[in-house]
Amino acid sequence: MSAEREVRLDTQRSARTGFSEIIYCPGKSDEQIADIAAALKDTKENILFSRVSEHQHSIIASVLPDAELHARARITGVRRQESPNYKGMIVITAGSSDVPVAEEAAVAGEYMGCDVKRLYDVGVAGLHRLMAHVDDLQAAKAIVAVAGMEGALPTVVGGLVSCPVVAVPTSIGYGINMGGIAPLFTMLNTCAMGVSVVNIDNGIGAGYLAATIVRQLYTFQNKA
Amino acid sequence: MSAEREVRLDTQRSARTGFSEIIYCPGKSDEQIADIAAALKDTKENILFSRVSEHQHSIIASVLPDAELHARARITGVRRQESPNYKGMIVITAGSSDVPVAEEAAVAGEYMGCDVKRLYDVGVAGLHRLMAHVDDLQAAKAIVAVAGMEGALPTVVGGLVSCPVVAVPTSIGYGINMGGIAPLFTMLNTCAMGVSVVNIDNGIGAGYLAATIVRQLYTFQNKA
Amino acid sequence: MSAEREVRLDTQRSARTGFSEIIYCPGKSDEQIADIAAALKDTKENILFSRVSEHQHSIIASVLPDAELHARARITGVRRQESPNYKGMIVITAGSSDVPVAEEAAVAGEYMGCDVKRLYDVGVAGLHRLMAHVDDLQAAKAIVAVAGMEGALPTVVGGLVSCPVVAVPTSIGYGINMGGIAPLFTMLNTCAMGVSVVNIDNGIGAGYLAATIVRQLYTFQNKA
Amino acid sequence: MSAEREVRLDTQRSARTGFSEIIYCPGKSDEQIADIAAALKDTKENILFSRVSEHQHSIIASVLPDAELHARARITGVRRQESPNYKGMIVITAGSSDVPVAEEAAVAGEYMGCDVKRLYDVGVAGLHRLMAHVDDLQAAKAIVAVAGMEGALPTVVGGLVSCPVVAVPTSIGYGINMGGIAPLFTMLNTCAMGVSVVNIDNGIGAGYLAATIVRQLYTFQNKA
Amino acid sequence: MSAEREVRLDTQRSARTGFSEIIYCPGKSDEQIADIAAALKDTKENILFSRVSEHQHSIIASVLPDAELHARARITGVRRQESPNYKGMIVITAGSSDVPVAEEAAVAGEYMGCDVKRLYDVGVAGLHRLMAHVDDLQAAKAIVAVAGMEGALPTVVGGLVSCPVVAVPTSIGYGINMGGIAPLFTMLNTCAMGVSVVNIDNGIGAGYLAATIVRQLYTFQNKA
Amino acid sequence: MSAEREVRLDTQRSARTGFSEIIYCPGKSDEQIADIAAALKDTKENILFSRVSEHQHSIIASVLPDAELHARARITGVRRQESPNYKGMIVITAGSSDVPVAEEAAVAGEYMGCDVKRLYDVGVAGLHRLMAHVDDLQAAKAIVAVAGMEGALPTVVGGLVSCPVVAVPTSIGYGINMGGIAPLFTMLNTCAMGVSVVNIDNGIGAGYLAATIVRQLYTFQNKA
Amino acid sequence: MSAEREVRLDTQRSARTGFSEIIYCPGKSDEQIADIAAALKDTKENILFSRVSEHQHSIIASVLPDAELHARARITGVRRQESPNYKGMIVITAGSSDVPVAEEAAVAGEYMGCDVKRLYDVGVAGLHRLMAHVDDLQAAKAIVAVAGMEGALPTVVGGLVSCPVVAVPTSIGYGINMGGIAPLFTMLNTCAMGVSVVNIDNGIGAGYLAATIVRQLYTFQNKA
Amino acid sequence: MSAEREVRLDTQRSARTGFSEIIYCPGKSDEQIADIAAALKDTKENILFSRVSEHQHSIIASVLPDAELHARARITGVRRQESPNYKGMIVITAGSSDVPVAEEAAVAGEYMGCDVKRLYDVGVAGLHRLMAHVDDLQAAKAIVAVAGMEGALPTVVGGLVSCPVVAVPTSIGYGINMGGIAPLFTMLNTCAMGVSVVNIDNGIGAGYLAATIVRQLYTFQNKA
Repeated sequence: MSAEREVRLDTQRSARTGFSEIIYCPGKSDEQIADIAAALKDTKENILFSRVSEHQHSIIASVLPDAELHARARITGVRRQESPNYKGMIVITAGSSDVPVAEEAAVAGEYMGCDVKRLYDVGVAGLHRLMAHVDDLQAAKAIVAVAGMEGALPTVVGGLVSCPVVAVPTSIGYGINMGGIAPLFTMLNTCAMGVSVVNIDNGIGAGYLAATIVRQLYTFQNKA
Repeated sequence: MSAEREVRLDTQRSARTGFSEIIYCPGKSDEQIADIAAALKDTKENILFSRVSEHQHSIIASVLPDAELHARARITGVRRQESPNYKGMIVITAGSSDVPVAEEAAVAGEYMGCDVKRLYDVGVAGLHRLMAHVDDLQAAKAIVAVAGMEGALPTVVGGLVSCPVVAVPTSIGYGINMGGIAPLFTMLNTCAMGVSVVNIDNGIGAGYLAATIVRQLYTFQNKA
Repeated sequence: MSAEREVRLDTQRSARTGFSEIIYCPGKSDEQIADIAAALKDTKENILFSRVSEHQHSIIASVLPDAELHARARITGVRRQESPNYKGMIVITAGSSDVPVAEEAAVAGEYMGCDVKRLYDVGVAGLHRLMAHVDDLQAAKAIVAVAGMEGALPTVVGGLVSCPVVAVPTSIGYGINMGGIAPLFTMLNTCAMGVSVVNIDNGIGAGYLAATIVRQLYTFQNKA
Repeated sequence: MSAEREVRLDTQRSARTGFSEIIYCPGKSDEQIADIAAALKDTKENILFSRVSEHQHSIIASVLPDAELHARARITGVRRQESPNYKGMIVITAGSSDVPVAEEAAVAGEYMGCDVKRLYDVGVAGLHRLMAHVDDLQAAKAIVAVAGMEGALPTVVGGLVSCPVVAVPTSIGYGINMGGIAPLFTMLNTCAMGVSVVNIDNGIGAGYLAATIVRQLYTFQNKA
Repeated sequence: MSAEREVRLDTQRSARTGFSEIIYCPGKSDEQIADIAAALKDTKENILFSRVSEHQHSIIASVLPDAELHARARITGVRRQESPNYKGMIVITAGSSDVPVAEEAAVAGEYMGCDVKRLYDVGVAGLHRLMAHVDDLQAAKAIVAVAGMEGALPTVVGGLVSCPVVAVPTSIGYGINMGGIAPLFTMLNTCAMGVSVVNIDNGIGAGYLAATIVRQLYTFQNKA
Repeated sequence: MSAEREVRLDTQRSARTGFSEIIYCPGKSDEQIADIAAALKDTKENILFSRVSEHQHSIIASVLPDAELHARARITGVRRQESPNYKGMIVITAGSSDVPVAEEAAVAGEYMGCDVKRLYDVGVAGLHRLMAHVDDLQAAKAIVAVAGMEGALPTVVGGLVSCPVVAVPTSIGYGINMGGIAPLFTMLNTCAMGVSVVNIDNGIGAGYLAATIVRQLYTFQNKA
Repeated sequence: MSAEREVRLDTQRSARTGFSEIIYCPGKSDEQIADIAAALKDTKENILFSRVSEHQHSIIASVLPDAELHARARITGVRRQESPNYKGMIVITAGSSDVPVAEEAAVAGEYMGCDVKRLYDVGVAGLHRLMAHVDDLQAAKAIVAVAGMEGALPTVVGGLVSCPVVAVPTSIGYGINMGGIAPLFTMLNTCAMGVSVVNIDNGIGAGYLAATIVRQLYTFQNKA
Repeated sequence: MSAEREVRLDTQRSARTGFSEIIYCPGKSDEQIADIAAALKDTKENILFSRVSEHQHSIIASVLPDAELHARARITGVRRQESPNYKGMIVITAGSSDVPVAEEAAVAGEYMGCDVKRLYDVGVAGLHRLMAHVDDLQAAKAIVAVAGMEGALPTVVGGLVSCPVVAVPTSIGYGINMGGIAPLFTMLNTCAMGVSVVNIDNGIGAGYLAATIVRQLYTFQNKA
């Protein structure tokens, strides 16, 4: 059986969403990765391969020479469009160990056209670190809040701002953290309004969503 | 100990968010509910009491005569502002049993200033019911997708639209549904982009978030 | 079989701990409750019956006329000793629905000899409410921090103070809160130092522990 | 202790089921594998070894020279009978990463006598990919629907067809996917009728069951 | 809002499946139930309302006078077609407490056109009770095996027969049974081939599936 | 359908085990209970109905006039044989709230022919209460150790004795006790040797097992 | 800190139990292992080291030259006493992959003085394999029943015999087996009487317990 | 992006707590570790790096030459202050495999200024080992009780003493121990008073808390 029959790109998505294709790479065979890259060779929009291994990146890059590896974000990106540099998206982390997931969100936001501000290692067990950035936070239009351990950051941020907060639990922690399940539950139970949650370590999903919210602001026409 | 010392309203919230106060009622004593209602007597903004019992509503209404009960949504609302009737928010459900949670989201959206469109009982086990509304869905600016049982609706909706989808799992189901935990997990694992999730049965949180996204569109000024 | 054979009081405990007897009442038969009360008739130390039903209180009071019901704390107490009124114990809650569990801790602390300060409804989704009490918190010698929902309060408090914080998750919440399991996990994963955790809704255990810490300060002699 | 005493083949099974022996290989020692292969040397029916490692395959092949490795399906098969090529079995996957599990089902179906149609990478987050194959699906007699992530595919397929759908959750995913537990729960909670579920990654069980249903159609005699 | 907008019947289903409509009743309002019954007034096919309360049955019966209550199965059925009385479907239970779930399966099968054989209270802790019926079991074309407690029955049955076995865990049990989760897991882990599983207490789903398998035998034409 | 077809007594059991029939009553209909009682009318051995409601007891007693209710143990027993009064079985509990489960074990042991010693309310948080009975414990031949809360008792007992200890977790507790799941896990993880575990609140199973061990001592003949 | 302070042998155990010392080796440092071996140099009773790595065995053997490795059982044993060869202990497994855990039980039983009979690979999905050994099983005095996958074996065995059955779940399986948690739950929920359960893969604990039961038969004197 | 922006030290903590900085190292990049070490070069207080790998230690030591590796405790410490050698802190373990976690607590306590007493391998399955140290335990001011397996130690210790007990579950165990979740639950459900719990394997948190309690005794001034 040839691999062509195994991968079917959602070509209607970019037409529908105005955004680029995103390919989740774990579990895909080398042949599948190569087939997908080949099928995207001539697309006019940005492309993101998420959770790439270095080996998978090299396969992609051999087909798409303009592919760029963002190592910490584990993203291979292909930039085919100028960025409009939309303002208003912030990615914030509780700890420095959460940075790789945050980078996944930030890089995704950048490929989606946003000028992303990063605020890392400002967890709530030392509140003054967070409070130093209240003005930035209150000016934001969409915030990705990334935290492992107990996952309290999005609740405190959500209580300080009026824009949507996309909470991302990370698998940073140990014991009853259970690979991020504990901060996931924390975030879902938040008593702050305006906070929603994505899967553990799903930086790219959060970045995509935040960028969608910001982008909509700049492209919205129907104001009465 | 007097109850005054037990409730502290977040008076900075409305200043910060431009939205009304929301009070979660379960577990609050009658005295606490009455104290809160009294403290809000002269506020100029809309007020929402969520998950009210009929008994709690009557306490509130005796203090705030303009309080209105939305019985299916289990919301007592006090409308103190004209609605700008922002367009673009849709609330959609998989089943008819999900309607109470959906109403919580819809009523919240309406108090937040949105003109909310409802699409109920269009679950994915009979796709043609959903597909009949694709145009409405693709024109939306924020969608609240409510589903119990297996919780597949937000994934299918997320694959059809380009705006943010706020997924709400409900506790409708039995057995390994586990009071909504199964559809919650389904939604968090969605392979559709642009979907985020709130707690089980948290209609009001989803409605607040969707309304925040829509409202931001109409009030946004900073376009370069 | 007579009930005498079914209950055995730990008479060595009060000798050992210098504190009063605490009897956990759920699941005990009326006959067992009466037997216990009778056995304590002549004790010289304070007695606490926790999680009493009103019916159980009336049984106790018929045997021990000096028994007093603390209804919100669900405690029947018998005060047989002057209070030394040790200073330095604070009980703090995130929400007003957490007050019954907090009262359990506070009343226990009072029977243990402490002059307990209460700070209720100062949850972290509206930080300014908490920050108004930083001076009190930083002067404390032991803090019981009570929270349901996402359970973030003890982490933020723990980051503000240098004394021990005893975290108590409550069963206030819904959905993936799972009767307090989510805030319990949050608290166990806290990235704040000096925080430890007791079982869900275990106000009396937390109050006992905080009072133990404070009392030890006042009775400690062995300084070199 | 010799290994002979450790393995006992269910020789009544093939008589009873009319199908071949299936040996699950993980955890079996080399000696056990060799003993089993030797015991099957002269059987007249097809044999399947599932979840074989390459090392285990080589042991089998050294005893049974007609053994063939199906690498992606992790199956070693021994074909001793002509295939009747029964029509009507489809194996469908949501993603391309689900293909190995799907292949396990498909290869099993083929050894069981079916002519299996494969439809891979047609997940519901891009519905048009699935809808392109509605005619094939509605003509099927038994469908194996394989999905990881949120596991919504079998619900949508079940809503489109009238034949039995055997749902197979896969361990493809991350975070709260929990190694396939989330899609398993999704499938068990399906609101589509005619869908049943097997264990996570149990492609061979699903393939066996689907082939049983199809085969029964072709061998059924008792019509009144 | 009128209830009409809240319920949408899947009128394509019966066309597609050749079977009757099945309405899951828990959580539906009286108005919704009445609307559904009214919408089905003139249908020519059988109708099943599952998990009806007595109150819901009386609402249905007031609209559809030919509605019949099957009390133990908690089914309200409306028979509009002669039964073809297809042979080959068996419903078997481990205990007598499992009978209500088994009746749900059996009644569903009967409305779907099958002549259902019942074998109740033949659990595997007294094997001789089961072995007395081996001939019946081996002649079956589809078996619904219902068990609570440890859920071992479908494994033993699956090892005795060659037809598909649909396993239904029930919530009969206590302690670590966890409302049927333990037997559900047992059945999913079965080492018997040909067994698949539905949700806890989902008798109607299992009956529908078994009847689908049997019915397909009698209506299948394409034999080469 | 008559109820006779729904209940099948395991008449081979008593022949095989030399013990009486045990009928688990929850979930059984009145008709089923009556049928079972009638079927046992003339048996020569002891009979136990476990977890009977008062209503179920009255049904049984109307058929079997020699039936006796053991209310705390929720057992209806019918004694048809003299007791041999085998010595050596002890039932021990951690708390007084655990007594109903312990009584289930003790009454079962007594119907099985043992002279059961009870040691109640000797939990390990006050070790001296337990240590007062070390001689009794070390002389025992089988011990049923019953505990809720943290479930530590069987570990400490197991470390003190050389006979088998059957550990029974109870659902006494709250919060993360989870209806007895926590003490169940404690007991399964015990580092004491000679301890095995039965389901939560399964006093009757533990009593049956302990009595089996003791009875075997008195009836064993084959010594070389 | 020297390692001597880290290990304290329970020298009272062998006096109390009449059995040998058992040392659980995982997580112990090389120095700790060596210290323990040295401390046991002159003991007159049998010694068992469980879950030894090959490296740990070599440390032990360098101190105790009479140490023998039982590789499949992962036991290092030191035999210092003649075996009385007590009859009546059987170890039975469902699959051949369960053999290592079964060997742990069997070897433990042998060091405890029993003449152990092994019945391997007789799982209940092919009942005839088990039924061939009913006579052996019914003559046993204590049975260790080992099973992974769905864990049904102990229930079926428990229904066939009158002696105690010690059930051992193994981690053999995949998916919702969850490393043996599923068969553990199955066994705890068994509807067979006389069955108790030990931790997953705890062959040695089960073997110790079964041997305790058998040994007690041969050493029991107090018959009236 | 430079790493400087990724790490923000909580410089207010040491001012606030009077204790040294603690850096949790897993998940931190080499560059982050080096940046943190550099930022702490001139601090006048003790520093602790927890859960360091050997590689991370060498990075730290190259920046901070006075850094010392405590290998079993996986701590790199930097001592910049004389120890006041406060008396009264005990670290106790159930098994010898728990020693690494206990060492984490003990070393932390020593850097915090305590003279820590260690009591290792005194688990409750051999009570006499523990009882030999009752006098030490009853003289303590704060006890860290470390246990894996069933986690019963803190309950027994808590019942013997009057000072606070900080319970630390460890991941030592197997099967339903679930990496320490079982002993965690045990400890949270303890029926002993004065016991609180930290996360699994969180020795450093427990040591910090115990040292805080002891230190407060020696620095407390406000006695009336």
